[in-house]
Amino acid sequence: MTHEDLLDRYAQLIVRSGVGVAPGQELLMTAPVDAIPLVRRIIEHAYKAGATLVTTLYGDDAATLARFKYAPDKSFDAASGWLFDGMANAFRAGAARLAIIGEDPALLSGQDPAKVTRANRARSRAYRPALELITSHAINWCVASAATPAWARSVFPDLSADAALDRLWRAIFACSRADKADPVQAWVEHSRNLRQRTDFLNARRYKALKYRGPGTDLVLGLVEGHIWKGGASTAKNGITCNPNIPSEEVFTMPHKDRVDGILSSTKPLSYQGTFIEGIKVHFEAGRIVESHADKGADIFATMIATDEGAARLGEVALVPHSSPISASGIVFNNTLFDENAASHIAVGQSYADTMANGGTMSAEERAAAGANSSLIHVDWMIGSSGLNVDGVLSDGKTESLMRKGEWAA
Amino acid sequence: MTHEDLLDRYAQLIVRSGVGVAPGQELLMTAPVDAIPLVRRIIEHAYKAGATLVTTLYGDDAATLARFKYAPDKSFDAASGWLFDGMANAFRAGAARLAIIGEDPALLSGQDPAKVTRANRARSRAYRPALELITSHAINWCVASAATPAWARSVFPDLSADAALDRLWRAIFACSRADKADPVQAWVEHSRNLRQRTDFLNARRYKALKYRGPGTDLVLGLVEGHIWKGGASTAKNGITCNPNIPSEEVFTMPHKDRVDGILSSTKPLSYQGTFIEGIKVHFEAGRIVESHADKGADIFATMIATDEGAARLGEVALVPHSSPISASGIVFNNTLFDENAASHIAVGQSYADTMANGGTMSAEERAAAGANSSLIHVDWMIGSSGLNVDGVLSDGKTESLMRKGEWAA
Repeated sequence: MTHEDLLDRYAQLIVRSGVGVAPGQELLMTAPVDAIPLVRRIIEHAYKAGATLVTTLYGDDAATLARFKYAPDKSFDAASGWLFDGMANAFRAGAARLAIIGEDPALLSGQDPAKVTRANRARSRAYRPALELITSHAINWCVASAATPAWARSVFPDLSADAALDRLWRAIFACSRADKADPVQAWVEHSRNLRQRTDFLNARRYKALKYRGPGTDLVLGLVEGHIWKGGASTAKNGITCNPNIPSEEVFTMPHKDRVDGILSSTKPLSYQGTFIEGIKVHFEAGRIVESHADKGADIFATMIATDEGAARLGEVALVPHSSPISASGIVFNNTLFDENAASHIAVGQSYADTMANGGTMSAEERAAAGANSSLIHVDWMIGSSGLNVDGVLSDGKTESLMRKGEWAA
Repeated sequence: MTHEDLLDRYAQLIVRSGVGVAPGQELLMTAPVDAIPLVRRIIEHAYKAGATLVTTLYGDDAATLARFKYAPDKSFDAASGWLFDGMANAFRAGAARLAIIGEDPALLSGQDPAKVTRANRARSRAYRPALELITSHAINWCVASAATPAWARSVFPDLSADAALDRLWRAIFACSRADKADPVQAWVEHSRNLRQRTDFLNARRYKALKYRGPGTDLVLGLVEGHIWKGGASTAKNGITCNPNIPSEEVFTMPHKDRVDGILSSTKPLSYQGTFIEGIKVHFEAGRIVESHADKGADIFATMIATDEGAARLGEVALVPHSSPISASGIVFNNTLFDENAASHIAVGQSYADTMANGGTMSAEERAAAGANSSLIHVDWMIGSSGLNVDGVLSDGKTESLMRKGEWAA
């Protein structure tokens, strides 16, 4: 198949299996300007699927960089609240959400970390009302990716620009199953497999998970009534979507006050334009009380100081080390991919729909039940071929869940 | 000078003389994706001028076309109100407005005119709150242009794609004075010249203008206390801007009920993706009671039927036939240029600041004084080397204003 054929199948997959655009629904897409060829195909497929209106908000790494280079100091406490509020209003009015990502993972690595943190904080605050509609799964949504020159360069620094871009596109198509004979059907089957896994885990009703591995020795409590999710899920608006393309994880809600021990990252984390590597944190009663990073320690420290919930867990996810993404051997420098190559956790905002009745509880009720709340939600990878995970049953007995990074149960 | 040098000077001119971006001000820009190289330079200059945040909303002709080709019928009554409301909120919070235009003038010429009209109407309604903040000059704003392949092809159909684009850019730079030694200073002088003209016209206090020319025989009443404007103007936020780059016109407010006679267009009008040519209309008591167009008659008829004010005048502008834009001999198929090559009128919304106290009156008071109100504001060209214009003084005496398209007074 030509690149154009694959791109078209990928666009169709994103519209149908990813967002699940419904006839009569509006679609709000964000994308980098380098993704225009993909975006145009997505727009075409969205209208063919019955979308009434597709609005694309383009981002541009060059514009972001110009801000850091030339804007006055007060810029870094500003955010376009009018736009984020508008997005929240669109979601409230029934719009679906699609984020195409492909930013340069190292875009802001040369910039003042204090400014990066301030800008992120201002943006997170302004985005919160819109983000809450996504994390509570009020609407169908999807995050997918587009290969861009800067991202490709960061993943394949030894290849020529053209070869790197081509290689990254091929990896995206493969990891997303867009190169299968029938990608939409492939996702139906994939989702069914993930569903078997979540059904099993939901039936076990573990009260905690125990992690042991290089640099990791942790007991991670789960909220009562936690729900394991993975693959396709149905939003409150009744529409089924696959929120991440690709996706290999099953995930649920940790208890924000019941995490104890040490945890080490196993892959670099690209956080809003800078790399954070070699993270090692110490949890007590759910909170990170001590943190270290070999690289980007300042950014990491300020990130988990964003608010009270930024130093507590909002998500825990299990991914076998043999996942297709991990098997590709590529470190993507992008959480959407790397989190699906390894078991991971996320600090910050929890997903209300990973707890029984979470979607109908008040924020206070959710917090009392152990659900974490924050302006941020940042995943980082802790899985490896050296990781063992046990499930702790309600009577305190444990059983093997993962051994050497693979499912044991 | 290289193209890159000129582009940079043009970007700086737009930021400084066009929008007049103030330190600490947010900038909201719309632009076609084909204008990215210009947009990036504008962003850089805006931050250097002290902008706190620049947000660009990109449009894409290909996305517009995909909607007309593939969207379900109900799409054409939809508009992204959440986005337009967000823009209005940005303006209320103090943001400046910059529109970079460069769309394909004939983009929608092959599409169903009924759908074009419905889509335009839905968009106009949704955009109205934001547009009112612009027409009332609550904020500093500017419309400028970028050469794009499709626009260049329409203007220079006989040239190669590259040559057409290059030729259009050079015409834009020349008409915008971006190729002068000091473009910002050139605009100060240009504005001074236009100010002398408006000072003269304001002192005359004409009660009407009389037009005679090929296909035109019209008496056009002006509102009492009308104000002639042109060149730089100061918004209610205290910031001075040049709302159009280029701009050669002086303009004021017609009385919505006092226009009688016939009027013919002298250049093609590109209205939201279709061409309307050979317009001939008959006014009675301010209202178009009969209309004809050689081409695009349906679109024209539905345009002036948008609402009550769409068939009445909101603006009258005088431009000498020897203006630099007219002298270029190029028909730009774009109102921003063509309206500055010829005297013109606009049906639809009036500019509140072209009437004494218009900005502080209520909508009812403005209407009672003769100010027109509409969802649309569409300029079309009536000037030519055959046009004579007289000013009618309060005592009924007339004096020559323009003869054979040139200033006579």
